[in-house]
Amino acid sequence: MLSTQLKNQLIEIVGDQGVLDQPEQLACYAYDAFIEEALPDVVVFPKSTADVSQILKAASKAGVPVTGRGAGTSVCGAPVPVRQGIVMGFSKMDKIIEVNTRDRYVVVQPGVVNADIQRALAPFGFFYPPDPGSMNTSTIGGNIALNAGGPRCLKYGVTVDYVLGLEVVLASGEIIRFGSKNVKDVTGYKLSSLFCGSEGTLGIITEAILKVMPKPEAVRTLMVTFGDLDSTAKAVTDIIGSGIIPAAMELMDQMTLNAIEDAAGLGLDRKAAGSLLIEIDGVAEACDKQLKQIVEKVNENGAIKIEEAATDIERERLWTARRSAYGVFAKIAPDILSEDVTVPVSQVPEMIRTINDIGERYDLTIGVLAHAGDGNMHPMIAADRSDKAQWEKVERAFTEIFQAAVRLGGTLSGEHGIGLAKSAFIPLVMNRETVSFMKKIKQAVDPGQILNPGKFV
Amino acid sequence: MLSTQLKNQLIEIVGDQGVLDQPEQLACYAYDAFIEEALPDVVVFPKSTADVSQILKAASKAGVPVTGRGAGTSVCGAPVPVRQGIVMGFSKMDKIIEVNTRDRYVVVQPGVVNADIQRALAPFGFFYPPDPGSMNTSTIGGNIALNAGGPRCLKYGVTVDYVLGLEVVLASGEIIRFGSKNVKDVTGYKLSSLFCGSEGTLGIITEAILKVMPKPEAVRTLMVTFGDLDSTAKAVTDIIGSGIIPAAMELMDQMTLNAIEDAAGLGLDRKAAGSLLIEIDGVAEACDKQLKQIVEKVNENGAIKIEEAATDIERERLWTARRSAYGVFAKIAPDILSEDVTVPVSQVPEMIRTINDIGERYDLTIGVLAHAGDGNMHPMIAADRSDKAQWEKVERAFTEIFQAAVRLGGTLSGEHGIGLAKSAFIPLVMNRETVSFMKKIKQAVDPGQILNPGKFV
Repeated sequence: MLSTQLKNQLIEIVGDQGVLDQPEQLACYAYDAFIEEALPDVVVFPKSTADVSQILKAASKAGVPVTGRGAGTSVCGAPVPVRQGIVMGFSKMDKIIEVNTRDRYVVVQPGVVNADIQRALAPFGFFYPPDPGSMNTSTIGGNIALNAGGPRCLKYGVTVDYVLGLEVVLASGEIIRFGSKNVKDVTGYKLSSLFCGSEGTLGIITEAILKVMPKPEAVRTLMVTFGDLDSTAKAVTDIIGSGIIPAAMELMDQMTLNAIEDAAGLGLDRKAAGSLLIEIDGVAEACDKQLKQIVEKVNENGAIKIEEAATDIERERLWTARRSAYGVFAKIAPDILSEDVTVPVSQVPEMIRTINDIGERYDLTIGVLAHAGDGNMHPMIAADRSDKAQWEKVERAFTEIFQAAVRLGGTLSGEHGIGLAKSAFIPLVMNRETVSFMKKIKQAVDPGQILNPGKFV
Repeated sequence: MLSTQLKNQLIEIVGDQGVLDQPEQLACYAYDAFIEEALPDVVVFPKSTADVSQILKAASKAGVPVTGRGAGTSVCGAPVPVRQGIVMGFSKMDKIIEVNTRDRYVVVQPGVVNADIQRALAPFGFFYPPDPGSMNTSTIGGNIALNAGGPRCLKYGVTVDYVLGLEVVLASGEIIRFGSKNVKDVTGYKLSSLFCGSEGTLGIITEAILKVMPKPEAVRTLMVTFGDLDSTAKAVTDIIGSGIIPAAMELMDQMTLNAIEDAAGLGLDRKAAGSLLIEIDGVAEACDKQLKQIVEKVNENGAIKIEEAATDIERERLWTARRSAYGVFAKIAPDILSEDVTVPVSQVPEMIRTINDIGERYDLTIGVLAHAGDGNMHPMIAADRSDKAQWEKVERAFTEIFQAAVRLGGTLSGEHGIGLAKSAFIPLVMNRETVSFMKKIKQAVDPGQILNPGKFV
């Protein structure tokens, strides 16, 4: 429980309208898209960096936890306030401060929605590459805190590759700024990368300078289906192996395809064991040439059907299918767990076989969705948490999936983050000394342990 | 002075052959390509991570500084052991451990020369993009410690964008490992980026997993000359502004062109006020199209002469001119100072005017070389350090250059690092709290301050 004194301080800083403390209000800030929940004591909405600084000073003095929160679309539990305290929302810090396509950057506040940056850039023929599945709702502050990825990160890289500079408020309330508007900058430690993916445990991001890119002049989008999953995966490694790096290469298995078809009736081939949504972009002539090479490769792997999007509307339809996968899969059962183990791309076929095998052994519905070109797999298990026996199987299945990924040279998370979901599995990929190194940094920067406590560090 | 006990310990760890302590030997490890020098007490050459760990344990216990050193090609003084102690060389840890082009990575020891990685990858049709001017001699350990850039980083990004994972030995001798062979990995803090550019102040890199890329099928190289420097710079911003991102876009002013011509007689146009070496790569058809667009843009800016390299030999000749610039400029006077202030690309013309103006006011020979596409400028001053009055002017000129860059939205260093050269100027770009934040991290990780002390943190 928060002291009345602290609550009054918060009201003084952000005003009556900026503080929520009624149970029905707090309930909206207790969860993300992972399964665990925890009620905060209070939710505050700063309007400025100065507000954030004052809130953190007050919280530090009182020793009360502060957990930053964007749109709550995280799937690893990162913004769930497991130690209660203050949740800090950024809906009032949602301005695009500067758009400068000549020098290829934008300056934004943390509450700006990813898609709004895209909209602001479109008239100039530019875009911001990282495109998490949640891009229509997730905020850039959350994207940075979780180092978000997305389908086109295969070619373009993830969030950390686009953060040029940050303004961050530390637990002490001190405001630090680093990086710059320059795409090359080696002045001091690369702090922007340290904060990117730190899941709110080191500081609160209050402003970001992001690199943006000119939109490629042409895009080609293909949906290819296969008779078995092995060939689907093999086509992926063959395309990448031939030196082509598509913008995106999304794999869906039969279960996922059918779940989408049930829900959306998009005309997908229900009998296909696997499908690839492949997108290439760039200079038109280069796209045409690569398209031919890709068609050759998928044919060599026994493609059943190759469908090219002839118009923007058709392209949108194919992407809608892909983007809706998580949502429709979530409707199969009361609960869904989606993971994002990642393996070297040559191990994708083996990893898919292993996931299927685990699903059969535990008698679980596991759909496979993958950003296959970079080995980032999203096994999704639809299950019922209230069925204890089944849920235990779910947990054992995921443990085996993590172990298999690591055995194949992979890692726990490609883009979702660790949060609550995967903290326990960190020893699979890091020795004690490395974990202790992270804790030393955390301790040095947040000695009172008030920033998003109870997470991976 | 090192204690006999510590020296004996070092000999025990690496053997007689792995320790140098004679004055004439030490002198070879006292400097880099910056102007300051400092003799170490001893130089050791570990053969393994275990050796590095034992050396650091011994040094920590004795409170003796340890400074890592690659090939000593740094131009900021980073490997100069200003507090003496141990210099650690990596010529015995120079193995390429794994080349895996299917999964797009290599695993290397820190002493591997950048160009040797390129040679190991070439037969597979792959390359490692970061290409510092020193690539034929500089080692990957140094490249990572300094977050090296290079001409083609305009399109491909700098070293930090290619470090997937590291093994690092801490001051305590503990060995930590993080990152993985996966291009996407968000497991814990992004430590690979923290060490990249840390200039040996946080730990000693003993192994690296680097991302590699398929070689583009085609390359086109152009040398374009202009009648004035303004038009040269304007052509750069026009090309970038049109949405084309060349692999490289190198600017040289008249003074630099003539210095090269004096030394190498490559047939460059001595009357040109400015020149651009432009390279594009990718799918052949895309290169052809972009080449036309680039020719249009340079013609719009009054290009005097456009020369396309028709063969690999001609291409090599153009690049030799560019790559030799630093070396030939260094021969104009006894000393050379080369800086690498960086500005947003739209400010390149203004920055060049400012540098010329500063040169005139102080009556100094300042050549301008720039990775112009990303605003990374290399003003070079040839002067005589023994001429005190002149050297004072050099220092004042550089101070003004740093101030001007920051005023234009730029930063102190795009790729050379801070080292000894620019520590004093950090307050121009970072507030006290940010500097103190870096110091906190340093203190937490290296409480005895033995790792490369006396540098920027």
